[in-house]
Amino acid sequence: MNTAYAARTADELKAEYTLVKTHFDDLKAKALKLNMARGKPGKEQLDLVSDILTVLQTPEDCVVDGLDVRNYGELSGINAAKKLFAELLGCKPEECFIGGNASLTLMYDTIAKAHTHGLLHSEKPWCKEEKVKFLCPAPGYDRHFKITESFGVEMITIPMTPTGPDMDLVEDLVKDPTVKGMWCVPKYSNPDGIVYSDETIRRIAGLKAAAPDFLLMWDNAYCIHEFDGDFQPFDDILTLCREAGNPDMVFEFASTSKVTLPGAGVSVMATSVDNQKYMEKLLTIQTISYDKVNALRHVKYLKDKENTLALMKKHAAILKPKFQCVLDWLGKEIEPLEIASWQKPKGGYFVSVNTAPGLAKRTLALCKEAGVVMTGAGATFPYGKDPQDSNIRIAPSLPPVAELEAAMDVFCTCLKLAALEQKLA
Amino acid sequence: MNTAYAARTADELKAEYTLVKTHFDDLKAKALKLNMARGKPGKEQLDLVSDILTVLQTPEDCVVDGLDVRNYGELSGINAAKKLFAELLGCKPEECFIGGNASLTLMYDTIAKAHTHGLLHSEKPWCKEEKVKFLCPAPGYDRHFKITESFGVEMITIPMTPTGPDMDLVEDLVKDPTVKGMWCVPKYSNPDGIVYSDETIRRIAGLKAAAPDFLLMWDNAYCIHEFDGDFQPFDDILTLCREAGNPDMVFEFASTSKVTLPGAGVSVMATSVDNQKYMEKLLTIQTISYDKVNALRHVKYLKDKENTLALMKKHAAILKPKFQCVLDWLGKEIEPLEIASWQKPKGGYFVSVNTAPGLAKRTLALCKEAGVVMTGAGATFPYGKDPQDSNIRIAPSLPPVAELEAAMDVFCTCLKLAALEQKLA
Repeated sequence: MNTAYAARTADELKAEYTLVKTHFDDLKAKALKLNMARGKPGKEQLDLVSDILTVLQTPEDCVVDGLDVRNYGELSGINAAKKLFAELLGCKPEECFIGGNASLTLMYDTIAKAHTHGLLHSEKPWCKEEKVKFLCPAPGYDRHFKITESFGVEMITIPMTPTGPDMDLVEDLVKDPTVKGMWCVPKYSNPDGIVYSDETIRRIAGLKAAAPDFLLMWDNAYCIHEFDGDFQPFDDILTLCREAGNPDMVFEFASTSKVTLPGAGVSVMATSVDNQKYMEKLLTIQTISYDKVNALRHVKYLKDKENTLALMKKHAAILKPKFQCVLDWLGKEIEPLEIASWQKPKGGYFVSVNTAPGLAKRTLALCKEAGVVMTGAGATFPYGKDPQDSNIRIAPSLPPVAELEAAMDVFCTCLKLAALEQKLA
Repeated sequence: MNTAYAARTADELKAEYTLVKTHFDDLKAKALKLNMARGKPGKEQLDLVSDILTVLQTPEDCVVDGLDVRNYGELSGINAAKKLFAELLGCKPEECFIGGNASLTLMYDTIAKAHTHGLLHSEKPWCKEEKVKFLCPAPGYDRHFKITESFGVEMITIPMTPTGPDMDLVEDLVKDPTVKGMWCVPKYSNPDGIVYSDETIRRIAGLKAAAPDFLLMWDNAYCIHEFDGDFQPFDDILTLCREAGNPDMVFEFASTSKVTLPGAGVSVMATSVDNQKYMEKLLTIQTISYDKVNALRHVKYLKDKENTLALMKKHAAILKPKFQCVLDWLGKEIEPLEIASWQKPKGGYFVSVNTAPGLAKRTLALCKEAGVVMTGAGATFPYGKDPQDSNIRIAPSLPPVAELEAAMDVFCTCLKLAALEQKLA
């Protein structure tokens, strides 16, 4: 029997419950220990890039453009790394600031400095404002929301549509001068895998924000992270903002965490030259320079956009079967029951499942009982509170496919069980 | 003629002025371009550690204690790195948090978090306090003072003595609850090269501060950085603070910036386990993990304290002749004139010259004219203002000895010229 739960009789649902519960108990008895919680690359992906470990071997290897990267200095990073990121993002090298191993840190530091010192066009540090609000398209990235929450920012949830955030709502809300910014993951959004449409991006770049220091946090985490099909060009947000008369509104972030090594990559913050000058005055107090040796390793290893995209194809070959496994299980086991919906992303690191309201927490509790750890329910919403208790983020990159098969069996069984419990309650 | 300027007649001083001015003009004509501004290791030192570049070569090399350091995770760092730093500092591994390539960043982030979120024993974030004061032994490290200045902290200069900060003054000032902390470089202090005496350290550890969240910033930057003679053991400040009933008062910082590579080392923040737990809750919002691959490189390369100290002997063999050169010039050219005094450090990265009042700025302006760049006058004092206009920091580590000879000729000539100008004015 394979029809929507909503179309079934009470007796049919009870019979289904018995079947599903028996399968759940069988799975539980296996005492599995599986993890689909975070977007961590798998070992096979890490092994792809081993040559980066030895790309610098001698003192001579450590000199680039006459600069010895081993020593102190060059706060904004080496030019060769700026050039590489500019080619990947479509911006200019002089708009790139090269950070350490985590773009998250560059994002945190940007928000932190807005609070303690203010941004280029701030009238005062945000900590001196009575109220600071931030627009949070959701479901979104839990670590973004944690940053703004940590600084006491009031977060306003913006619904996601298949073309990006609900722009009518965004355009209306930015008329409020206490709305100081917005989080965005524009390409293969975390977690839905949605690519913002051209129209959405242009409307964002052209926002008429009342706050003079409105901060567009553009986390282009998956800028070259197609796992299905070819690289999709994506317009440079810095250019669009400049053309729309908002040259200093956007800070774009990216990294090689899911290109080379997650714990030892290189990050970039791209923003206008005026913003760079302003931020460097603050950043020079925090550090003398980020790790330029590792930046040079990346430049020598990745070389250019063409070579980097070729590497991404190898990642894609590893990732695609994992995503296919997730989508196959959902299509076969869940789709006919009409108890959840999801996007079918072609890039990024997640599949985001929206269950019928009220099922997410219970589904994940059952998963945990059966030995499968997933991202916590609610994590994809501001304050960790999903108003519909509906969104579940599946991160299939870490486990091998065989483990994923077992984990998805558990997940689908738990989702069915939660839906049946609700219907029979 | 080689007697104190103060003992000479006006005619003798005029004759000396003519001699010195002629020599100055000769030096200026050489159009030198020399730099003694920052404590940067020289190329010969960087070349000592080239093997660290290739110490990790394969995926298997990147696994330690069952952990793959290439992937995300382990916010506080790998245990092997904690063990290494604990052995070097004399604290416990669980008291160590392993950071990125800059201890300065860990220091900045500690002060930043005190302001935005408060410390473990803070009643509120420091940004909500009407007044925050910090004790600044001076001359001291300009980058320390820039951090507290950047957060609007009122800095109080504490005179340095040959045994460390003036502790009678410190003990008196900490009775003020708005005095929230103190900067210290306890071993081979920047710039004087003074080693705090046992009594000073014990008095610091036992401070009865009125502020419940008094923050002792213990920058042990030169903990193993003897360039003359053997490693000098130094008591662990965490233990002393704990024994004195101040277990959570101290945050100690160190790094391998002047052990391996200045731009690509590993840093550590050592503090009580309770402080670690508290800080990790804040740091987990800022980053997923620091670069554990580079931390493991350091562990495999440095191995243990014995091996690390053997490496420091090699650094010492390069540095000692440079410091000797500086001290020889000062001894021969300046000492008899009685226009300046200085310590004779056995470790650290600086020689700190205290001129007769009113000579520092003019001396450095003359040096610049003659092509020798030095740390800016006043930099070693809070707000960059040396009340006596007297302290000059010499950083001899970067230039080869031949260049140092030329630079010290310039420096001594300029100091004499400044003194003569003042006497003849």
